[in-house]
Amino acid sequence: MLVGGKNCRTVWFGQNALKLVNQTLLPFKFETFESKNFKQTAFAIKSMIVRGAPAIGATGAYGLAQAALECNETDLNKFFAFISTAKKILAGTRPTAFDLFHALNFVESEIKKSGAVESAKHAALIASQNYADSSAKNCEKIGIFGNSLISKNSKILTHCNAGWLAAVDWGTALSPIYKAKRNGKKPLVFVDETRPRLQGAQLTAWELSQEKISHSIIADNSAGYFMSKGEIDLCLVGADRIASNGDVANKIGTFEKAVLAKENNIPFYVAAPSTTFDLNCESGKNIPIEERNENEILFVNGLNEKNELKKIRIASPNSSAKNPAFDVTPSKYISGIITEKRIIMAKESEIKKLFR
Amino acid sequence: MLVGGKNCRTVWFGQNALKLVNQTLLPFKFETFESKNFKQTAFAIKSMIVRGAPAIGATGAYGLAQAALECNETDLNKFFAFISTAKKILAGTRPTAFDLFHALNFVESEIKKSGAVESAKHAALIASQNYADSSAKNCEKIGIFGNSLISKNSKILTHCNAGWLAAVDWGTALSPIYKAKRNGKKPLVFVDETRPRLQGAQLTAWELSQEKISHSIIADNSAGYFMSKGEIDLCLVGADRIASNGDVANKIGTFEKAVLAKENNIPFYVAAPSTTFDLNCESGKNIPIEERNENEILFVNGLNEKNELKKIRIASPNSSAKNPAFDVTPSKYISGIITEKRIIMAKESEIKKLFR
Repeated sequence: MLVGGKNCRTVWFGQNALKLVNQTLLPFKFETFESKNFKQTAFAIKSMIVRGAPAIGATGAYGLAQAALECNETDLNKFFAFISTAKKILAGTRPTAFDLFHALNFVESEIKKSGAVESAKHAALIASQNYADSSAKNCEKIGIFGNSLISKNSKILTHCNAGWLAAVDWGTALSPIYKAKRNGKKPLVFVDETRPRLQGAQLTAWELSQEKISHSIIADNSAGYFMSKGEIDLCLVGADRIASNGDVANKIGTFEKAVLAKENNIPFYVAAPSTTFDLNCESGKNIPIEERNENEILFVNGLNEKNELKKIRIASPNSSAKNPAFDVTPSKYISGIITEKRIIMAKESEIKKLFR
Repeated sequence: MLVGGKNCRTVWFGQNALKLVNQTLLPFKFETFESKNFKQTAFAIKSMIVRGAPAIGATGAYGLAQAALECNETDLNKFFAFISTAKKILAGTRPTAFDLFHALNFVESEIKKSGAVESAKHAALIASQNYADSSAKNCEKIGIFGNSLISKNSKILTHCNAGWLAAVDWGTALSPIYKAKRNGKKPLVFVDETRPRLQGAQLTAWELSQEKISHSIIADNSAGYFMSKGEIDLCLVGADRIASNGDVANKIGTFEKAVLAKENNIPFYVAAPSTTFDLNCESGKNIPIEERNENEILFVNGLNEKNELKKIRIASPNSSAKNPAFDVTPSKYISGIITEKRIIMAKESEIKKLFR
């Protein structure tokens, strides 16, 4: 999508390095992080230089390809053992989003089809590139299906960042909005700021500005107020993992917005590619929820009056915090799931059909 | 309540000045703001040096007494006209909390009972002092009644700051918690940080620290998560205005927490003195909701690494925000209202009985 009027992806293979839009600096600085090896790529995922389920997936795929390329083993079994260790390190970075595990399994299985180290390295590179391209295409398809839910001048609430920065391109929840804009529908987006990391106020607002889409940042606390006032027509959010019964793990606060949407009779849609579905996970109760450092709540980053990026403590100095990064929205609150294949109900039977 | 181990009120008459704990500097600095005249007191309310419905009420009462004392008119009718103008200025500072209007009406009516300027000035001073003392006593009574809802080791969610800083002393929602602590019940408090102004992370957390009560700050987004996990036994919040049908206006986000509490079968109580009830207001739909400046969302205040109080921009630079300061929780989500007289249901019939 557009950055300063030019198309950009979140992650791509450059010469000798994996390139990532550094999302810890956005919206204040647009910089590219260069990862020279798979361990730096694991660091980039862990430190949230890249975040968002589909983007983490593609980055994990590229990371495993990096591991294949940098491995000096000439014995095929030792090479596979190296890949297996690298995969564990990449998989150990973030626990909740499923795309990462899906992507790593895909690239590993492509590698293991080869009978020689050199061809396995080649297969890893091709597989990771295909994974990222296919991820971008699937997100565009989500946009095409999701656009059918958007009317002219629709007022849409979104939570966190499920835009192109959270994917390779297009995004999940924002992809239908980008398509609607290109179809002349003039959507207006209410952007939950999304504490504690403020991905809404910082990333979604920045993306929408770049694409010249009307939007207002709101405190997470006021989403229910705007719903009750009839100011919201539709809710669109992304997903980190979808269980086989249709329960959805997503950014902390998604559950709250879904309950409020149901209470106010507002459609609540989840947008996610099929790589986000974990068919081995029977229920949202089984999805591991990442607990992050309390400092994400106690401190915030932003620009001071000299335009320098600074961190300040906002909470009372002697108090501590609890910081679960995700929550689970039971399927009963979800109007539907927008996938790259079609829009389905958040039901086990429909999810099974999707993967048949 | 305790500050550094010593008892303190939010607002009191000192020599030649009204003294206010400056809440715009807390929890980082404990300073007293001195208001020399009623216009400075109006400024203190408008700029949120003092905030919280009962505290604004008492400050308004003192402000009108200041107006009486500083008035140079010797003609009684001109004196009353001056009081009337001062009352309008004080009433025009904040639109939502009802205690302010209640307090101003009370002091004005006491003033108007006098037949001479000097006795009217004396009446104003006595009335404002009585108002503040009675407000403090009523909050303590709320604590005694509310304590009956708290079990040993209760886990309690609270939103915004409805502690002693929001009142003259004791607070509303926190008063039962202070009483429970003194009764050896060891409550654990989940403190919603309460964006945008962070009264939870900054004021409630500070109050609870001073009183050595166990607490964790949480992102507003995670209240629903903790409820769904069985981590919350009881919700206690304050109120800015209660309509005669039991609908409650309170800090933005209260509605969200009330809906979530109902969905998770958790009791949700509002604590408020009778001065917060607006019997002329038939429904929450008629309560005016203050829209505040978008900069409260786009910027935050906190301490930098040198312990200096700084403001930084946290939102994307080209985006704007919407900032409603309050919302209305319909009575159907409220388990009960804790008043200084007794705990009642949020129902018109019970509210009418309370004022009989």
